[in-house]
Amino acid sequence: METADIGLIGLAVMGQNLVLNMADHGFSVAVFNRTTRKVDEFIEGPARDHTVIGCHSIAELCQRLHRPRKVMLMVKAGPVVDAFIEQLIPHLEAGDIIIDGGNSLYTDTERRVAECAERGLLYLGMGVSGGEEGARHGPSLMPGGNPRAWPEVKTIFQSIAARADGEPCCQWVGEGGAGHYVKMVHNGIEYGDMQLICEAYQLLREGLGLSVDELAETFDRWNRGVLDSYLIEITRDIFTVRDSDGEPLLDKILDSAGQKGTGKWTAINALELGVPLTLIGEAVFARYLSALKEQRQRAAAVLHGPRTGFSGDRAEVIEHIHDALYASKIISYAQGFMLMRQAAGEYGWNLHYGDIALMWRGGCIIRSRFLGNIKAAYSKDPELENLLLDDFFRQAIEAAQDGWRQALELAISLGIPAPAFSSALAFYDGYRSERLPANLLQAQRDYFGAHTYRRVDRPQDEVFHTDWITLAKKAGIS
Amino acid sequence: METADIGLIGLAVMGQNLVLNMADHGFSVAVFNRTTRKVDEFIEGPARDHTVIGCHSIAELCQRLHRPRKVMLMVKAGPVVDAFIEQLIPHLEAGDIIIDGGNSLYTDTERRVAECAERGLLYLGMGVSGGEEGARHGPSLMPGGNPRAWPEVKTIFQSIAARADGEPCCQWVGEGGAGHYVKMVHNGIEYGDMQLICEAYQLLREGLGLSVDELAETFDRWNRGVLDSYLIEITRDIFTVRDSDGEPLLDKILDSAGQKGTGKWTAINALELGVPLTLIGEAVFARYLSALKEQRQRAAAVLHGPRTGFSGDRAEVIEHIHDALYASKIISYAQGFMLMRQAAGEYGWNLHYGDIALMWRGGCIIRSRFLGNIKAAYSKDPELENLLLDDFFRQAIEAAQDGWRQALELAISLGIPAPAFSSALAFYDGYRSERLPANLLQAQRDYFGAHTYRRVDRPQDEVFHTDWITLAKKAGIS
Repeated sequence: METADIGLIGLAVMGQNLVLNMADHGFSVAVFNRTTRKVDEFIEGPARDHTVIGCHSIAELCQRLHRPRKVMLMVKAGPVVDAFIEQLIPHLEAGDIIIDGGNSLYTDTERRVAECAERGLLYLGMGVSGGEEGARHGPSLMPGGNPRAWPEVKTIFQSIAARADGEPCCQWVGEGGAGHYVKMVHNGIEYGDMQLICEAYQLLREGLGLSVDELAETFDRWNRGVLDSYLIEITRDIFTVRDSDGEPLLDKILDSAGQKGTGKWTAINALELGVPLTLIGEAVFARYLSALKEQRQRAAAVLHGPRTGFSGDRAEVIEHIHDALYASKIISYAQGFMLMRQAAGEYGWNLHYGDIALMWRGGCIIRSRFLGNIKAAYSKDPELENLLLDDFFRQAIEAAQDGWRQALELAISLGIPAPAFSSALAFYDGYRSERLPANLLQAQRDYFGAHTYRRVDRPQDEVFHTDWITLAKKAGIS
Repeated sequence: METADIGLIGLAVMGQNLVLNMADHGFSVAVFNRTTRKVDEFIEGPARDHTVIGCHSIAELCQRLHRPRKVMLMVKAGPVVDAFIEQLIPHLEAGDIIIDGGNSLYTDTERRVAECAERGLLYLGMGVSGGEEGARHGPSLMPGGNPRAWPEVKTIFQSIAARADGEPCCQWVGEGGAGHYVKMVHNGIEYGDMQLICEAYQLLREGLGLSVDELAETFDRWNRGVLDSYLIEITRDIFTVRDSDGEPLLDKILDSAGQKGTGKWTAINALELGVPLTLIGEAVFARYLSALKEQRQRAAAVLHGPRTGFSGDRAEVIEHIHDALYASKIISYAQGFMLMRQAAGEYGWNLHYGDIALMWRGGCIIRSRFLGNIKAAYSKDPELENLLLDDFFRQAIEAAQDGWRQALELAISLGIPAPAFSSALAFYDGYRSERLPANLLQAQRDYFGAHTYRRVDRPQDEVFHTDWITLAKKAGIS
């Protein structure tokens, strides 16, 4: 009986496309889907001329794989993954490999790696990004989990992955949940990127009154500069699409954003790890606010903004908005890499930030020229403390900051919300502040709760408490 | 044998002060502390002339209470609470009451209420705010848990609580973890209030160059207007305190903020419930950034800001900063009450928002005149959808918005971080936007992930998907 190189469970679009991609690269794939009709439709349809074996049970799938068996799950994250693992176990042998390619929470992956290891199985949690197109023609893949599994599957996944600068966008991330963790941060950054583009769009449209044609032209131009990226490119495309009545299709779309949880997880993780991930936090909250469409409509009727209209040089302001987007993007990635750095320490991962930038450089939704600059920064200094301290980014943000500030001042004066631009600038100005007002905060905490404080002129392991009430009374104003 | 009205375990300052407060109001209290030396010191010291019974074991404590026994825990939140519950259980009988007055996570309280109910015990989780002073002379108390316990302890707690407008700042909050939940949100709002004051302080100091004397004078004046509150008052006091060398003590305090988790919990809960709690989120992140003192020092040496200095009318700008603080505070409370509203629906609580405002009106750290206005808003309309839609707050924010915008534009032009002022304004401008740019975000998600979208001109249960790539190619620019 002919056996396959790898098995895949879950034939939704992403699963199907990964199978076809593997087959294109010379790998034979056995496939199974809970609704088995989908298996037949796939085999007779898109997979017809490919080395794909349709299976109608988990048992059959496992029989059709040579050892060590490799079974990839492309199913809904959550309990469904655990259910399939349980179903697979009776049909697997020690040393066989399970790969979860869904958007699983990294702590679930961490648990599954350990549970499978107890049963002699090697478990991988692999982030897969790039949407349907990426899956079909070259996704970004972020594998983590049991390191013993990696040599067995490396060739397959590096073959089907996108390539950037000649390297596959698929490199070993780390043990346990590291792969899914990095994918989670990728998705958080994607939330940030999308929010930044939305803010630029709203300023250009509501503030400057650009038409969709002018917007398409602007984004087309931006896509040939430092902002060159997949998301800028598809945004340009979106501006060109008309509804059947000739009006921009974009104007017909409800402004209420959905989400699937990974951005939220990233923000929650940052709160838990103590990392100031402000921009992604604002991006997640902006989606929540957008979802309150009806409440916003009621509020719009009674809450007024400034009456100022735009007057100025449009071309110049478009450049300011460009600079705001670019500088804010630098902040967002700096924060994202701060988060990964903290997580690496916390969870005991040896993350290679240059490799991560490389994996995101191609294939995935956030792919961009920009990620090449990040890769370069970490190649130059793998121990770089913060992206903002790299010469390239330091100079880039300093060159952009004047426009950034002016774009924000304009947004504020016109009453157009720019939460991510704002939080990015506040972070930049805070990060480069040797002195922040937290001394007052510590004084307040010591005043009402005797929480104590440290002093700038004394060793940091000494703490002090002051009887503020008595001293203030003495000073006379109380 | 003489028995007491209530027992209290945990004689740190907060515990001691609550005991003395109860004794002052005519209640007899039996006390126990793990380190029993503290019991003796307390009985012989501060409690000497009070009706307080020292106990040297949990068994003794329980013997010295009349039924139904009431035992209050003032111990460290977390496993310590569970440990004391286990130790108490053998000495309690059906109908006896345990009250946790620590800052427990509301989900822990939820669990403990259920676990105790299974054993016939009535459990309360009660938020206690006001610091040492409040505990001694009138705290704000937020009781929740098993409603059968409330009539038994109501008199004691309402007697020792602060009073506002003639009412005790202690009203039944709701079942399960409701009391501790409301306390958590209180603490989150406290984070926001403190951050807002810090931003005003930094703008006044770094931007306008105010001396501590001028700062004290400014805050003293503010404390006689709409900002009248405990935190403004103690901030004024702090400005007056000098170090032994005559320099402002504040300048010697390390600008690296600590935190104990409740602000973080509030932000995480908002992310989980889908509520745009941006200001408290930024306040928590601002503490994290402040803690990166050494990294900030390195960054300050290489990252430059604008070279603009302040030129303008100082008195006028001080008013703008006042308005920014006031308007941002309105946003912060509006968001906090949005969160509680969402939580009430999610967890099945019947929260009385007016009562909550009343409880916070006196006794606690965030007590203020402002909370009287919130109480008034909910008295007028208990079903008020959002504080911003109340006439008083709508008019207040509209009157403040011009100064708010100018203060922020100044901060941006000077390079002074104002993350909470910024996020508040972005929220205001977003909340009153009938149209947000999330239509573009939905188009992007549909483009790369076929996530579908809804249309403004079609029923909201219909979803659409567009083949953007093909249509964009047709349009020609791709």
